[in-house]
Amino acid sequence: MSPFPSSATRTERWRHLRLDQCDGVATVTLACPERLNALTFGAYADLRDLLAELARERAVRALVLGGEGRGFCSGGDVDDIIGATLTMDTAQLLDFNRMTGQVVRAIRESPFPVIAAVHGVAAGAGAVLALAADFRIADPSARFVFLFTKVGLSGGDMGAAYLLPRVVGLGHATRLLMLGEAVRAPEAERIGLLSEVTEEGRAPARAAELARTLAEGPALAHAQTKALLTAELDMPLAASVELDAATQALLMTSEDYAEFHAAFTAKRPPRWRGR
Amino acid sequence: MSPFPSSATRTERWRHLRLDQCDGVATVTLACPERLNALTFGAYADLRDLLAELARERAVRALVLGGEGRGFCSGGDVDDIIGATLTMDTAQLLDFNRMTGQVVRAIRESPFPVIAAVHGVAAGAGAVLALAADFRIADPSARFVFLFTKVGLSGGDMGAAYLLPRVVGLGHATRLLMLGEAVRAPEAERIGLLSEVTEEGRAPARAAELARTLAEGPALAHAQTKALLTAELDMPLAASVELDAATQALLMTSEDYAEFHAAFTAKRPPRWRGR
Amino acid sequence: MSPFPSSATRTERWRHLRLDQCDGVATVTLACPERLNALTFGAYADLRDLLAELARERAVRALVLGGEGRGFCSGGDVDDIIGATLTMDTAQLLDFNRMTGQVVRAIRESPFPVIAAVHGVAAGAGAVLALAADFRIADPSARFVFLFTKVGLSGGDMGAAYLLPRVVGLGHATRLLMLGEAVRAPEAERIGLLSEVTEEGRAPARAAELARTLAEGPALAHAQTKALLTAELDMPLAASVELDAATQALLMTSEDYAEFHAAFTAKRPPRWRGR
Repeated sequence: MSPFPSSATRTERWRHLRLDQCDGVATVTLACPERLNALTFGAYADLRDLLAELARERAVRALVLGGEGRGFCSGGDVDDIIGATLTMDTAQLLDFNRMTGQVVRAIRESPFPVIAAVHGVAAGAGAVLALAADFRIADPSARFVFLFTKVGLSGGDMGAAYLLPRVVGLGHATRLLMLGEAVRAPEAERIGLLSEVTEEGRAPARAAELARTLAEGPALAHAQTKALLTAELDMPLAASVELDAATQALLMTSEDYAEFHAAFTAKRPPRWRGR
Repeated sequence: MSPFPSSATRTERWRHLRLDQCDGVATVTLACPERLNALTFGAYADLRDLLAELARERAVRALVLGGEGRGFCSGGDVDDIIGATLTMDTAQLLDFNRMTGQVVRAIRESPFPVIAAVHGVAAGAGAVLALAADFRIADPSARFVFLFTKVGLSGGDMGAAYLLPRVVGLGHATRLLMLGEAVRAPEAERIGLLSEVTEEGRAPARAAELARTLAEGPALAHAQTKALLTAELDMPLAASVELDAATQALLMTSEDYAEFHAAFTAKRPPRWRGR
Repeated sequence: MSPFPSSATRTERWRHLRLDQCDGVATVTLACPERLNALTFGAYADLRDLLAELARERAVRALVLGGEGRGFCSGGDVDDIIGATLTMDTAQLLDFNRMTGQVVRAIRESPFPVIAAVHGVAAGAGAVLALAADFRIADPSARFVFLFTKVGLSGGDMGAAYLLPRVVGLGHATRLLMLGEAVRAPEAERIGLLSEVTEEGRAPARAAELARTLAEGPALAHAQTKALLTAELDMPLAASVELDAATQALLMTSEDYAEFHAAFTAKRPPRWRGR
């Protein structure tokens, strides 16, 4: 998505989540703690449209996704979603499942790094939202539960059967998606599912800190790094090397690259512009 | 493979392996312990055709692959196979190597999870059979030896150069396939090659237990999870998300999904039908 | 690349690196220790052309890449390269970045295993050269720094955004490439970035020892194993199984395979010819 403006206006109020923006950092909070931030149709739709809007704003340079209350996100709501899908027709079922997948694609394709701050449980769709993020920072007591088979569904939900083997390898991914058992933070760290484990209760603060660091740094370089990581999972070696060459040639004309050299020569820290 | 019946009849007796079937679990045992279950032309051909037959039977919901005696499988027999291939012509060599690869494809594409119960050695083709399984459950004394280069052959045998990097990463895979050295259970667990290490001597029992759990559970959900994991290794993100959406929409019309909701609402455990 | 001779002559002297050849092992040493082996335009170009020449010589069966002095390689030189690129035009920038990528492709596609012997720092392009190798053998004090974003560039340089996720998984790769922080040997080993950690100061000797072992062994088998690992990262399962079958059928007609059987039968060690 590109920041060129169209006629579309910014949404004034997101009813199904909380959005804070400050100095290039967007913080999206699932804010339904009385239901452990269970996702509803409205929450999925808000995430989809919010990410599309933010992708058009050059001002956003990092995004934190977290949950209010006792946990990160308990996944699709049993009553609101599972109950409702039992009465849907074919087209409605496809529309719903495409929408959830679009949220994952929006996270992977957003032009800024996304940091999931995970405490308590990240279950079902909540686990996949975190999986789609670029960084997963978690409390030692956090746990991921890809519980789809436990409700009779496929473990490959919202791209999980694509993403998880590429993060933790096919063996672990098969075990986690097929059995739907909880993976606690120590195991998650050991198999490569976590970027960082913090002290208990510190995951949101640490995620905010990393987001600030990223936003204040060479944000264009970060955005391109993410774009290449996402694209090259689906590309052969030779084409990836060519994409890297073209991208790097482009960034060598950027302000931040010239600023690095000037700062290095003057023995001072660089002042990043993110462009 | 789909369970619609053709004119083909079931094979009465498999001469080169042992097959037991019980309550949705098929147990395939390499049963030539006096040769450490070395694979012969007949054993490969039986595995290929047996897996094709089982894939047509909806009754099979999980498969355990194990070996009788001191180890899992010592790989292709030095006399029976290596000696014989030295006298084969071009077409025969291709036929043989395609057959072994077909066994791996049959394991990856079978519509039920496959659990390798590994004790003692899994060497050469035996290591690749285990690698192709969805779960590898092993005794602490088990070891894997991808020994192909030790006999002058390529480490990329039967899909190993495709599968192993996707299970343990390219660095470890290169080391294991190029050097052909033994990997013992503790290292295998550390690098993601094992799903579970049991107490010594317990791998077959634990594999049987997991197979029973899978067979008694939402077997259609398990089968689809496996199918998506297999397919999406070869698919880009956007297409994977679309495949997930279509699959999930389909499974939301299944009996098991409705049963989960009914059971959850009635606060009772679900009675899975596997459909 | 194939060893059939053309009219091209061998380069007599490589001005930007040191080349030693002995009994099938080529040792390439970055030999500018006063600048921590920083890469210059000449060094990249020498690596590109040297690897192309060596790929035409059947005599080379393993290659060791190391650095003289305090470290392996500090990456592109800040003055020589970063300074110079600031004055380049579009075509020059693309030519330069394509050249660096060609070195990585040459390492991945060379018909012999490449072993990086890493001590001290492997930074920037130096980290990617090591990443492209088949084996990374390192001192306990070695560290990798994918520092591209620290100079305002994309972490996806020279194929790093393709290679690193396939070696350590997408989560770790994102963290390393986006943040540009140092990864020390113990963490590098834990996440699968290292093939082996030696005693302090022993990495070059151990790399030389492994290279000798590979060169004296079934070198054609090793070369094919590497070729399949490289190719099958970009291939689907079914095609990979077919490629394995054709390759293995071919190697079953090789001298080394017959020699293995003769040696096994005579209860003596095989005398490998590498063909």
